[in-house]
Amino acid sequence: MGTTQLESVQEPKYWHLKTLLSEALDSDFAVGEVLPNERDLAARFGVARATLRQALEQLELEGRLQRRRGVGTTVAPPRVKVAVTTAPHGRPGSDPDEAWQPLDCAMDPVPASVAVLLGMEADEPVHVVRRIRVAHGQAVAAELLYVPAGSVPELSAIEAPSGPVRARSVLRELHRLDLDGQDRSVELGSARADDARELDRLPGAPVLVVTTRYLAAAGTAAVSVATYRADTCRLTFGDSGALEISHEEQERKAS
Amino acid sequence: MGTTQLESVQEPKYWHLKTLLSEALDSDFAVGEVLPNERDLAARFGVARATLRQALEQLELEGRLQRRRGVGTTVAPPRVKVAVTTAPHGRPGSDPDEAWQPLDCAMDPVPASVAVLLGMEADEPVHVVRRIRVAHGQAVAAELLYVPAGSVPELSAIEAPSGPVRARSVLRELHRLDLDGQDRSVELGSARADDARELDRLPGAPVLVVTTRYLAAAGTAAVSVATYRADTCRLTFGDSGALEISHEEQERKAS
Repeated sequence: MGTTQLESVQEPKYWHLKTLLSEALDSDFAVGEVLPNERDLAARFGVARATLRQALEQLELEGRLQRRRGVGTTVAPPRVKVAVTTAPHGRPGSDPDEAWQPLDCAMDPVPASVAVLLGMEADEPVHVVRRIRVAHGQAVAAELLYVPAGSVPELSAIEAPSGPVRARSVLRELHRLDLDGQDRSVELGSARADDARELDRLPGAPVLVVTTRYLAAAGTAAVSVATYRADTCRLTFGDSGALEISHEEQERKAS
Repeated sequence: MGTTQLESVQEPKYWHLKTLLSEALDSDFAVGEVLPNERDLAARFGVARATLRQALEQLELEGRLQRRRGVGTTVAPPRVKVAVTTAPHGRPGSDPDEAWQPLDCAMDPVPASVAVLLGMEADEPVHVVRRIRVAHGQAVAAELLYVPAGSVPELSAIEAPSGPVRARSVLRELHRLDLDGQDRSVELGSARADDARELDRLPGAPVLVVTTRYLAAAGTAAVSVATYRADTCRLTFGDSGALEISHEEQERKAS
């Protein structure tokens, strides 16, 4: 370990290879094209298979490559822009685009991390609505919406006790609430097994976890924990109505 | 590869171990405590070293563990909440908390990805202000703020041509602009070598990339590309002023 140690720590071999591969993807490959196999690629760039694999993993993390069983490694399309911002007084579960599909609803114990946000004790029962969000025909997010019984007092107990019909009843009652606003956080996470299944990923795949609190005068009315695919999604937040137009203009220019 | 194949794909061995380890972190370890070495841990849970390493990597990705050279693997403190939302008419580079430290400024060719957002040709020269954001004494983000010369026409050419003084001059001129709003996107990326150095990470470490466009009547006035440490940061976005109070209340409760 001589004087080059620091330099090699700062710029590992696979990192340089990643840059070269990224340039090759831009110039020599089309979106959806299958890459040559690892042996051929390693030979082409004169690197060990292990180094190549590290570089491919990095490019997958950055959303440049997709690896699917039975297909191989393909060049990924640009990330899908997924708007997270709702109207200033957006309502939990509201969905003008019908992009969210309610899957199920049940009374379940609230996890400790969500209980804190709702001002409840852990394991108290709450309505848990499960939805997936579809964009361009692909599931991009899985959501758990936690709704304390007190937020939907008018909910009829005699309606369907679970399933999508029940989910729609809870959402409908939620929409009647008078909300003061919402706040949101975004952090890196890894897909739980059930989310991974719905998002067509393996458990542990990197995801962006968006936690939203919907606030009413009496406290937090509901909490949504949405898990977005980090490989294919780019979350957009618009602060003013004017921006959505700019977005569209940009999409138009790009296409 | 018998009938259990599907199940083992959905819930790999390291994933189960990760869950067990996560519970052990909650019950048996304090924040900052150094974990036993890999051999002892693998023996304690009866797993192979490779499986243990996968589980540890996953916990690092989720922000539960920190691995530092010379220290070992320690239990991470909860992620730092970093507010990304500014006032509705927030200005590029404005910083009421003085949390952003200007490091440098230079005229550099604009990268293609930023040129699209600014409505410019790639490689046209723009002011590039480099800043880092510090929270709780630790660098949490590195930012490149791209400012076309046309956005700061009053900038004096005779002042310092580069360095922090020049950076402050560009920021000061930017603050005089009349802005219509801003939009923002968040996506997963990997740290470039220069960002990694400032964030005390290795190149390729997962980061959350926040791209902000500052919009003026004439078009995009500036673009900021900020790279946040994904292991230690949780980005918060508040849609209304009232929420910031709730945040503080929550912090007070937690501490």
